[in-house]
Amino acid sequence: MKQAMPNWLKKRAFLTPNRPAVSFEGRTITFAELYQSVFNMAGKLAASGLKRKQFAGVLLRNHPDSAVMLLALQLLGVRAVILNNRLSAEELIWQLEDSQAAFLISEELFAEKRERIGRMLPELPQLTKERLSEVNFVEPDECTEIDMDEICTIMYTSGTTGHPKGVIQTYGNHWWSATGSVLNLGLHENDCWLCTVPLFHISGYSILMKSIIYGMKMVLHEKFDPGKTVQDIESEHVTIMSVVSTTLTRILEHLQGDKLPDYFRCMLLGGGPASLPLLEECVAKDIPVYQTYGMTETSSQIVTLAPEDSIRKLGSAGKTLFPSQLKVIAEGNREAAVHEAGEIVVKGPNVTTGYLNREETSKQDIRDGWLHTGDIGYVDEEGFLFVLDRRSDLIISGGENIYPAEIEGVLTSHPSIMDAGIIGRKDEKWGEVPAAFIVQKSPVTESELLEYCSQRLAKYKIPKYFYFIDEIPRNASKKILRRELRTWFSSKNK
Amino acid sequence: MKQAMPNWLKKRAFLTPNRPAVSFEGRTITFAELYQSVFNMAGKLAASGLKRKQFAGVLLRNHPDSAVMLLALQLLGVRAVILNNRLSAEELIWQLEDSQAAFLISEELFAEKRERIGRMLPELPQLTKERLSEVNFVEPDECTEIDMDEICTIMYTSGTTGHPKGVIQTYGNHWWSATGSVLNLGLHENDCWLCTVPLFHISGYSILMKSIIYGMKMVLHEKFDPGKTVQDIESEHVTIMSVVSTTLTRILEHLQGDKLPDYFRCMLLGGGPASLPLLEECVAKDIPVYQTYGMTETSSQIVTLAPEDSIRKLGSAGKTLFPSQLKVIAEGNREAAVHEAGEIVVKGPNVTTGYLNREETSKQDIRDGWLHTGDIGYVDEEGFLFVLDRRSDLIISGGENIYPAEIEGVLTSHPSIMDAGIIGRKDEKWGEVPAAFIVQKSPVTESELLEYCSQRLAKYKIPKYFYFIDEIPRNASKKILRRELRTWFSSKNK
Repeated sequence: MKQAMPNWLKKRAFLTPNRPAVSFEGRTITFAELYQSVFNMAGKLAASGLKRKQFAGVLLRNHPDSAVMLLALQLLGVRAVILNNRLSAEELIWQLEDSQAAFLISEELFAEKRERIGRMLPELPQLTKERLSEVNFVEPDECTEIDMDEICTIMYTSGTTGHPKGVIQTYGNHWWSATGSVLNLGLHENDCWLCTVPLFHISGYSILMKSIIYGMKMVLHEKFDPGKTVQDIESEHVTIMSVVSTTLTRILEHLQGDKLPDYFRCMLLGGGPASLPLLEECVAKDIPVYQTYGMTETSSQIVTLAPEDSIRKLGSAGKTLFPSQLKVIAEGNREAAVHEAGEIVVKGPNVTTGYLNREETSKQDIRDGWLHTGDIGYVDEEGFLFVLDRRSDLIISGGENIYPAEIEGVLTSHPSIMDAGIIGRKDEKWGEVPAAFIVQKSPVTESELLEYCSQRLAKYKIPKYFYFIDEIPRNASKKILRRELRTWFSSKNK
Repeated sequence: MKQAMPNWLKKRAFLTPNRPAVSFEGRTITFAELYQSVFNMAGKLAASGLKRKQFAGVLLRNHPDSAVMLLALQLLGVRAVILNNRLSAEELIWQLEDSQAAFLISEELFAEKRERIGRMLPELPQLTKERLSEVNFVEPDECTEIDMDEICTIMYTSGTTGHPKGVIQTYGNHWWSATGSVLNLGLHENDCWLCTVPLFHISGYSILMKSIIYGMKMVLHEKFDPGKTVQDIESEHVTIMSVVSTTLTRILEHLQGDKLPDYFRCMLLGGGPASLPLLEECVAKDIPVYQTYGMTETSSQIVTLAPEDSIRKLGSAGKTLFPSQLKVIAEGNREAAVHEAGEIVVKGPNVTTGYLNREETSKQDIRDGWLHTGDIGYVDEEGFLFVLDRRSDLIISGGENIYPAEIEGVLTSHPSIMDAGIIGRKDEKWGEVPAAFIVQKSPVTESELLEYCSQRLAKYKIPKYFYFIDEIPRNASKKILRRELRTWFSSKNK
């Protein structure tokens, strides 16, 4: 049966108008105030020509105004193509064209990127929050009912092919992610979730959704800062926070010997496997860490370690959330035995229905509702998942996913480069950073390549190391043998 | 998109095997043990011939074995027609025939009713839990995945016509009821729900579902007893309990001056509007009461008063749960103004899709997903619902719904009775009890009528008062004017 539900924010503002909704730099607004701002912004967006079921690119930083913008798009039934604001103008243009976005909504802060996009896509109407504030309000045609199968957001993620794909996230996906999480973490009246992760990632967007669905305060930071984090956990009475290994490490450093307050009950740790020493340090310091595994395609966590197992199963990502399922597929397309590694395959109402305008890829990656993640892991005799490796070639740098093929594509487009290979290199601060192996066609310097990359790639994707070699090792089907590059690399370091 | 989910109990036993699941008379079993018993029972039921999508009548008392039976039917994908064990054999037979039940599952306790059913329905295979314990186990074909649109349970409820109708409750209905409640009441790690209401009512069945979906202990009592209630709130660390006005009153009486422990956080008060003095007494005694409004057709609560409003809006049933919606329809089929009374109309994923084998009635009562409840109420300027009256003729006696038309049908079938009318009369213990007005065809005594009713009606439906009058007041379309009966009644009492 088709499931309809009242618009979440409108319903929340009706149910608990006076509860705190979003807090930013010491200022807190209630759900009633948030809805009023969203309604107002929806009126201005409608007046600017946005229509239901259109795709609109959204390029914003973490700020309450951005939450208002994202929620206004929901209220209008406009599908938000949420852009990573660290991407280069070229990368953004690619996603805007791929999604056939009818508008770009941004802010003055990104003037330079907006101008470059404007030059390349002169037909694409651009709106900024600053200019929207001067637009006359027109009574918006609110989507008072949500169709759970309707597209809510598109977030791009790259695959092994190098071309980013737009992950479709329906309202249902976000809903089930939020309710699946509540059945694991519980919901206390005083809960408050600190969001220092980007709203343009599913990690941040899902906190915004939880805030509205749960009626829970979200404390929003523009970016992660360990001092501000520790301070706000105290002053804003934060009980839950989403972290990745690098940010958790920096919080521990900042805390030195200090403890977090008793009411703080969960560090939700995502973004790749965490090191055991880090987890053990948290246990020693009474910091409740819940390791979790998820991705854009699962609309945030799909596997999380339950309270009672957080210490006993240190290092595990846990078990699937209540509504979801998991299998490990070993070679030969059979279900792996206990402790046998294989590809992690997941299913559930929080799992994407597919990639935007990519029917073939969607069919290949999602079969009978089962998403083939490409990640490698195993389950133990009790069914706990241990993630061994994200997609074999994936680099995770400070919580951002980097796909080697994308960087290789940029490098090999340079006239002086014959071939290129990218692998991750361990890094104290970021966990990993990309390192490039280059085969030259004609002489080229590292600084020329840096300049070339910086025009085409987000900063975090630019290789931090360049190695010039004679040949990129490839197998018979011309696939890069990254393992050999890693071996080469470690032998060099000896 | 069709939503599939792992079988709830199986998933719960996998996620948190060692958490306490059901506690009964001091003995507690874990979710792993519960699943083991359910799996075992499913094997015995399968061996006895039960098949997926069949309907099976279930006649049981409150007991862990009954919970096991109900969950075993879920595991097999058998649709449970859950029978009110207070009904007479004749009433049970009617429901078994109407639902075309392929089996009757019961227990020795109900031997007399079972025998009468056996005489009337000799073709209907009967199973008892006692005899099932001796059946050889056969590996059951588990429904490892739940289809949310599939029928889980049928519960009969009467309407104004007097014929009980089987309310279809899908897995989705139960799921959404449980998650809608959690977004209102929250979910604490130590939560424990006391169930003294019947498992055959949606009030009890929904606690069983919550226990499994939340991973929460349910304390089960065979029947309500105020002393045992107060004792178990202490000894079992109960935090939430479902009550109706009469049981709440008796708990207050039993408590005398004593308070409930601090961790006890919610008396969920359903089953008809509560009196203001009762609510005020609870406020005075620090007993947290959450008034709620719901029915079999909404798979338990659909409107509940949120924590922050429980005192400010004393007497209100609250606002709709997050996923649901409500309208009040005044005369002329228009939405009522604020404070204007009208019919309460509700919508949501917890609302039934219709009545079993009654397409016409279903279409009439449920239009565009909106269920016309027949209940009367209004909303105030903030949107809080105040229920004025359940279906104008409904009698609520100790939490059981009694439909006058059903009793009238039995009475007029008596050869000495020309006409009959039933209204509710206030009662100190039960809230209301049925009172009968009789027009005789030939002389008949009260005791003859009592005997006649007791063979055909559940005990709580048998009129406690008989008044012999000359004519039942009826309007032009021959509908009984119950208001005039009530007036007659109060004038007599002066």
